[in-house]
Order: sequence, then structure tokens, then C-alpha cells
Amino acid sequence: MSDTYRELNPPVRLLLGPGPSNVDPRVLRAMSAPLLGHLDPEFVKIMDESKRLLQYTFQTENYLTLPVSATGSAGMEAALCNMIEPGDTALVCVSGVFGERMCDIVERCQGKLLRVDAEWGHVVQPEEVEAVLKQNQVKVVAIVHAETSTGAHQPLGDIGRLAHEHDALFLVDTVTSLGGCPVKVDEWHLDVVYSGTQKCLSCPPGLAPITFGPRAVKALEARKTKVQSWYLDMTMVQRYWSQERFYHHTAPISMNYAFREALRLVHEEGLEARWERHQLNHRALLAGLQAMGIQPFAQEGHRLPSLNSVRIPEGVNDARVRSRLLLDFGIEIGGGLGKVKGQIWRIGLMGYNATRKTVLTFLSALEPILRSEGARFEAGAALPAAEKVYG
Amino acid sequence: MSDTYRELNPPVRLLLGPGPSNVDPRVLRAMSAPLLGHLDPEFVKIMDESKRLLQYTFQTENYLTLPVSATGSAGMEAALCNMIEPGDTALVCVSGVFGERMCDIVERCQGKLLRVDAEWGHVVQPEEVEAVLKQNQVKVVAIVHAETSTGAHQPLGDIGRLAHEHDALFLVDTVTSLGGCPVKVDEWHLDVVYSGTQKCLSCPPGLAPITFGPRAVKALEARKTKVQSWYLDMTMVQRYWSQERFYHHTAPISMNYAFREALRLVHEEGLEARWERHQLNHRALLAGLQAMGIQPFAQEGHRLPSLNSVRIPEGVNDARVRSRLLLDFGIEIGGGLGKVKGQIWRIGLMGYNATRKTVLTFLSALEPILRSEGARFEAGAALPAAEKVYG
Repeated sequence: MSDTYRELNPPVRLLLGPGPSNVDPRVLRAMSAPLLGHLDPEFVKIMDESKRLLQYTFQTENYLTLPVSATGSAGMEAALCNMIEPGDTALVCVSGVFGERMCDIVERCQGKLLRVDAEWGHVVQPEEVEAVLKQNQVKVVAIVHAETSTGAHQPLGDIGRLAHEHDALFLVDTVTSLGGCPVKVDEWHLDVVYSGTQKCLSCPPGLAPITFGPRAVKALEARKTKVQSWYLDMTMVQRYWSQERFYHHTAPISMNYAFREALRLVHEEGLEARWERHQLNHRALLAGLQAMGIQPFAQEGHRLPSLNSVRIPEGVNDARVRSRLLLDFGIEIGGGLGKVKGQIWRIGLMGYNATRKTVLTFLSALEPILRSEGARFEAGAALPAAEKVYG
Repeated sequence: MSDTYRELNPPVRLLLGPGPSNVDPRVLRAMSAPLLGHLDPEFVKIMDESKRLLQYTFQTENYLTLPVSATGSAGMEAALCNMIEPGDTALVCVSGVFGERMCDIVERCQGKLLRVDAEWGHVVQPEEVEAVLKQNQVKVVAIVHAETSTGAHQPLGDIGRLAHEHDALFLVDTVTSLGGCPVKVDEWHLDVVYSGTQKCLSCPPGLAPITFGPRAVKALEARKTKVQSWYLDMTMVQRYWSQERFYHHTAPISMNYAFREALRLVHEEGLEARWERHQLNHRALLAGLQAMGIQPFAQEGHRLPSLNSVRIPEGVNDARVRSRLLLDFGIEIGGGLGKVKGQIWRIGLMGYNATRKTVLTFLSALEPILRSEGARFEAGAALPAAEKVYG
């Protein structure tokens, strides 16, 4: 093999897609700390601290709270495959790609699948969930809090209450919401909640934070069959993350360093301040975009602050705009997934990137590109509109 | 929450356990490179290079060669759950913890399990495998090449030939051998092979290199049921790792940086030189240990160069010795797992750590500890015995 491989030298990007987001330099530096063994007393201390920090981030006292050693999608699989045994009924709320993915996983777990659909960009209605719950014995109601494919922000209160009234577990995907808008696991009585690290927590992708409440733990303990995934089997993983420290698999040490540092930054800032920061920058971004004639895609009143989905203006070439943003300005934004491909852009303002500097940089780059695409709007209007929000 | 969390500051360890091993500073530095999106053209180039480097490391032309986005144990699960459908028969060769783990996973995949056992520390005999193959229609013969729990080095030639004579796929765990001793996927006709990053590749834990040969791909394509794990489903994962770049899950970007750099180091050194380096240091370590009266545990002629299992001398306190190595010298070695707990030590000389400096440092630290434990041997004999091997 005569190939030569050069030194790694990735360009610097402003990551405003649906994740990964940029991370604080402190998080990158944490990964270059020397490795410890996965049973080293010093690593165990780091695990304990990460767990406490994650409990804070999830706003929970659940002891079964830990990062799954794989990315957010594995968090989804871990949540579902630990709760669903063959023949169990799961009701999945679907309004985008990630709800669809939940359905796929439920079927792979040999669960009986029921679904309630909403139009993409809209949220699922409690009445429709209630109608299904009344007709069926459902074990798990699963829902996506922040649908990354549409930018819709799903309210959880009523659906969670209905799930519990019908003795079902309430399982929630917070991949794109945790750290960017309120996720209050205990106050909202959420039973199983998972997330990813690379969105509003601003940690590189590679771990999936997860938490199981008392009802979920009871369901786990009452299983008649083994969890079908050995790797994601929480009855075993928890023995490593508890004081027992029973070896299961080798923890990804460096990713756990990054995770602790990212959560330490969340804790330093404070969740409330972080949520407000995401809201403010979301409003400024939308104001700037609207000044260029760009309209939001997600339903009014249900728009995620962390992921801004907008309709691509008529006549504007999706691929060319995204390519010019990337190549001329080093800025990544997301295109549409699945049935909205070519129709929307997804602009993430997550964690480290939810700042005034980012918003203004992005608007300044987008404006000349859009004008060269023939989009008609008042030149120079975007920045003042955004600045007005900052006051 | 009034807790305070200090800056991450892990102590420097010499990691001579069963993994993770220490890694080259270049690998740690690679992880602090700025993040790219998982569909960025620059990241795609990195994926392509990593794939070529991994093909070299596995000595294969298999196009379905990639790092699974989770640790080595997920590699085991990926290998088995992609090949085994409910009702399929798998013959698992068991001579330690990791063979046992394969059995557990086969059953979770609803496979029909047959097993051939060998005494721990010994290798599985081809005749015993043949006897089972003659009596049963077996789809997969699964075996551990380097049993991390015993230090035994399993020969693959005869068993692989028998598997193919009986139309079975040959599935091999090389978690502790890849990069430390020959693993020649194409020349040896191995159908599915997986590994971990944190052993002889000297990359932090977090990815599981895997490769599927033509027979395995055919079996994958002929499946009647979906792979039970969505996250590990190679029919989908491969679409992201092929030129199609179809989004499946967000790749762990920083871990992939580290992986490319670790493989680049393997490529720079050359596999043959690397295998020789592991052999030489293994012999020196054993010579030094034997000079202190310590005997190997694994069967003669079948000892792994990368993981040296030795019997704990009589009267010596296992936990105390390991604790003093760690606290007084910052050296980690492994204790016994499962049924050999308290009976053996496992001393890894993997990748970056397979050096003369490491061997001499370790022997120098162990000698005074063993003497204070009352072990009887000629003082000062260990280092010269090791040095003699280096010549």
C-alpha cells in the first residue's frame, strides 16, 4: 500500500446545521487529557461527577442516569429496547423523521406498534393520543420533544398526563432540546428520557445521555425476557455506573472527559440562563431572516429555539446556497430530510453557537448569497432587524 | 445544586492492563481538532482515508469495512446480530469471558446456540469443532482470536477451513490481536472480523472496527428479517460509509479523528514491524517475570504477545500488589476476570506501550513490591533477564 496520509487538518467551520454544533475549546482540550483505565479510582470519580452533572441537566434525582456509550440514536434504541418486550404495545407520536425511526425500532423489538401522526412541522394533539389510549392497553407512549427534522417543539404536559392516567410509561426524545430549552424530568414526570451530546450540550457526538425514573426501573426489573441488545442492556450497564463498578464494557474514556467538561459548562452558566440565551438568539435570527423574506416552517407557537426550520424562498437553489455558505464562509446549515428535502433549511443555534456573534455572522453571510440568487428584499435590512431584538 | 466541579486533571498512568492502552500524543491531539459536520465533504475525505487505512490494518479488500460508532463490545454485537436471524444456528468456541459473551448475544438474537468449550487459558481444538459441524447445520462459527480474559492466542486456520467445508461463516473477535499480531482477513478467508480501538491500535476506546467479506455480505443481503438492532444494522450503516453518504446516525467526529491518526501510525510503522515489536517485548517481559518466579498462565505455544497472563505467586496479595503499582508507580495492570479472579494478572503490552522502556519500567516497579510481599527470588535478576532478550 503506497498511499500517503497527511496530518489531520480539518478546516474551521461554523456548525449551524442540526448538529454537531461547535464546542467550547475547553471541551476539545479535555479530550487530550491522558487516558485512565475504565476501573481506575480517578476515572470512577469522573463518572460520579458526570452523573451528578447530568442529573442537574435533566433536572432529576433518578439514580439510573448515565451516558450510553454511543451516539444519540443509540440512546433512542436503548430507551425503547429496555422498555419493550415482544408483544408489548407502544404508541408512537410521529411528526417527522425521528418519530418514524422510533416506529422502526419498536418493530425491531417485536413490539406492537400504534401511531398517532401529525403533519410535519406541526405538533401531535393530546386528543388524538387519548383516543388511542382509550381503545388499547398501551405500555409505552413515545414522543419526540424536539423534532430535529422539522424544528417543531412538542408540548409534553397533556400527553404525559394522559399516558400516566392510562398506566403507560412516558418516553421522550430530547436530543435537540436538552440544554437548549426546559427539560424537567422529575417535575414533568417523564419516565425515560434520552438525548445526544452534539446538540445543545455542545460536546462532540459519541454519547447518549439517558435517564430512567422509578416507574421505568420497575418495568425494567419486571421484564420476563432479556433486553435484546447486550450492549444497551441497562440491567447490566447500571451495575458499572453504580457503586458496584461491575465491568460491562470499556467506557469511552476521552468522550467521557469531554462530556464532563461540557456539562460543567452547562452547570457554570446555569440552565435558566442557558434557556434564555437560546430564546433570545432564536428570536434575533428569525427577525433577521424574516427581514429577508424567509418564513419559519414549524407551526407558530411551537418553534424550537435551538433548531430554526425555515422555508427556502421560491426560486432559490437549495444546494447552491448551502454549498456557497460552506465553501465561501465555512458555515454549515442543514437541508431538509425526507419529505421536506429541498423545501426547508434547518439552522441550528445550539449551545456554544447560540450567540449574538453567530447570528450576525450568519445573517451577514446569507444576505449577499440570497441576493445573488435573485431573492428580493431590502438590502441591509437583516442585521438591524436582528439587532433590534438584542435591544 | 451547590456542588463545584474542578478542572479535569487526570493523573498520568502507564496503562498495562487489558486495555485501554496509552496512546501516542498525536492521537490525543487529533481529537482536539475543530469539529466538522458528519456530511461535510472534508469529513467524508477523512472517512475514506480511515476506511483505506482500516483495510490495510485488517489486510483486506472488503468494501464493507468501517468503524462501528461504539466500543469493541458493540462490534461483537454488530457482527453477530447482522449474521444471525431467529432460528439460525451458531457454534461458539468458548475458552473465556468473551466467548461466553458471544453465547449470550447469540441467544439474545434468538439464534440456536451450540458451543465447544476449552479449559480457560487453553485453545479450542479443531477436532471438537468438526464433530459438532458434522452433526449440525451451522450458519456461523464464532471464535475469539485473542481471549482477553486468559491471554490465550487461538489458532484460526483449521477451524476456519472446517467452517467453510461445512458452509458456515467464520466470525472472529480480534479485539486484543488487531495491530499486535497477524490478522490477515483475506489470506485467512475470515468472513466477519471485528476489533476495538483501545488495545493494540492505541486509540482511545469508543469505536469498533469491523469488516464483512463477500460471503458475509451475501448472508446480509439474503436476510429475511430486519437486523434487530437499528443502530448496528449494517444494511443501513454501509450506505453512510459508501459513496451514497446516506444519513444514518451522526458519526462520532472526534473519535474518528483519533481513529484515523492511530491507523496512520500503524501504517507508518508497518504491520510486520509492529507485530515483531510486540513479540520482542512480550519475550522480554516474560523473561523478566520468570526471573522473579512468575509463570505464564496461558498454554505454551498459544500466548498472546499483547496480553501476558501470569499466575499470581503463592502468598502474594493480588489486590495489594495492583493497588501499590497504581498508587506508588502510576502503573495499571489487570486482575483476573470471572473464574480466574485472584489467580492471575493480565499485563498488556499493546501498541504504543509495547516498548523496552515500558517493560523495564514495569519490572523495576514490580520487583520491590513482590519482595515486600515475601516472594522469594534473586534480587536484581529481572532486568538483566529482560535485557538479555533485547540483546
